[in-house]
Amino acid sequence: MIKNYKIVLQYDGSRYDGWQKQGNTGNTLQGKLEGILLKLTGRPVEVHGSGRTDAGVHALAQTANFHADTGMTEDQIRAYFNQYLPEDIAVLSVETVPDRFHSRLNAVKKTYLYRIEMGPKKDVFERKYCYGLGKPLSVKRMEEAAACVLGEHDFKSFCGNKKMKKSTVRTISDITFEKEGTKLLIRYTGNGFLYHMVRILTGTLIEIGLGERSPQEMKEILLKLDRQAAGFTAPPEGLFLERVMYEDRE
Amino acid sequence: MIKNYKIVLQYDGSRYDGWQKQGNTGNTLQGKLEGILLKLTGRPVEVHGSGRTDAGVHALAQTANFHADTGMTEDQIRAYFNQYLPEDIAVLSVETVPDRFHSRLNAVKKTYLYRIEMGPKKDVFERKYCYGLGKPLSVKRMEEAAACVLGEHDFKSFCGNKKMKKSTVRTISDITFEKEGTKLLIRYTGNGFLYHMVRILTGTLIEIGLGERSPQEMKEILLKLDRQAAGFTAPPEGLFLERVMYEDRE
Repeated sequence: MIKNYKIVLQYDGSRYDGWQKQGNTGNTLQGKLEGILLKLTGRPVEVHGSGRTDAGVHALAQTANFHADTGMTEDQIRAYFNQYLPEDIAVLSVETVPDRFHSRLNAVKKTYLYRIEMGPKKDVFERKYCYGLGKPLSVKRMEEAAACVLGEHDFKSFCGNKKMKKSTVRTISDITFEKEGTKLLIRYTGNGFLYHMVRILTGTLIEIGLGERSPQEMKEILLKLDRQAAGFTAPPEGLFLERVMYEDRE
Repeated sequence: MIKNYKIVLQYDGSRYDGWQKQGNTGNTLQGKLEGILLKLTGRPVEVHGSGRTDAGVHALAQTANFHADTGMTEDQIRAYFNQYLPEDIAVLSVETVPDRFHSRLNAVKKTYLYRIEMGPKKDVFERKYCYGLGKPLSVKRMEEAAACVLGEHDFKSFCGNKKMKKSTVRTISDITFEKEGTKLLIRYTGNGFLYHMVRILTGTLIEIGLGERSPQEMKEILLKLDRQAAGFTAPPEGLFLERVMYEDRE
């Protein structure tokens, strides 16, 4: 019987070309998962992710779903995935969900985490999981700037896709800052994020935190609806998809 | 002028064949450092490590020293190393020391850290930095067993080198256990460690913590002076050289 399965997965994105399948080429997360489902079911199965993570971006808990007739229990499917997946991808859970559930369309909120090393010394164990800025940041200035982008706005200035034809309006419900030793952790929660949006927001906040721009500029950048107005695109290694939330679910 | 430099370095040992140079082959830590010093000084310079870490073993703070005429300040030497070293090796500090200082001969104590994941779920971000045991361990049993090997003993049973001709007597001054979520961190401090000694001690303690052996067996294993009596060699990815201590220094 064909069932709809929701899976939660973790991956170290360092050596992948991002989430989305790219024809027959490209080493992608979606491609890896679909390859295993082809082996398991004997036919092509499409895996829908809650969102596309870019090359080098990690996931602590990415959500995806697929429709398949596996003849296996949820636990067996999870074990099958983990047996054949490379060691930098892990399926944390498999759950049967109603037929109409779609991991992207039904997602209500997502949280992304961006990790920055402010200390001068490079930590070799963090090189793939942290942006090694190596300079102190004023969290106070960054918090002031972040407050300007909370709520519903047109985030065109923070969209990395110049040819974006769909709406660039999104709602950010929360941006939090946490210091962990010499690291700064920034968490962004919102109903959706445009291409490179978290990384451009982070790059802009870093420029403000370094004193290169004033916190007040954040509002002006937003109003300009122009990518050129915003800051640099912070590198992928610091970015983690941390959580995808659905209605009536924790 | 030729000076004696003490360096402290950090490395992710995952992709190296261990510390020690192996003729012209082998991708080793010592080889990488000596390659850079050859480039810097124009002549071969031998780098003495405080101890040899095995293939796949990491260092949070390995110490080494070398005699060279660099014509550079300590800060410049550190910057030069970090410019040319691959991103999984970092020189944390460079310090001029008395001519007779030797990183191995003058080391008084060393601390090794071994990290074990006891939880059932694999964490992809820890795959190279933790032994994924996936089973709960009784720390109480392990502590009882660890107490038997404290002090000066002949650790022949815990020596991975069958042809060891030198003394296998060592002193372990401390073994501590720390729980960090579902991880168990074991720290061994002693005046020196034999080939694979920390990994064999850990493997044996794991077998005791799993209930496969009794804590009292630890004493018997020690007295047998036979590698066959001890437990398995725990894998390298969980092991870190954490600290090397010298006299009159913190």
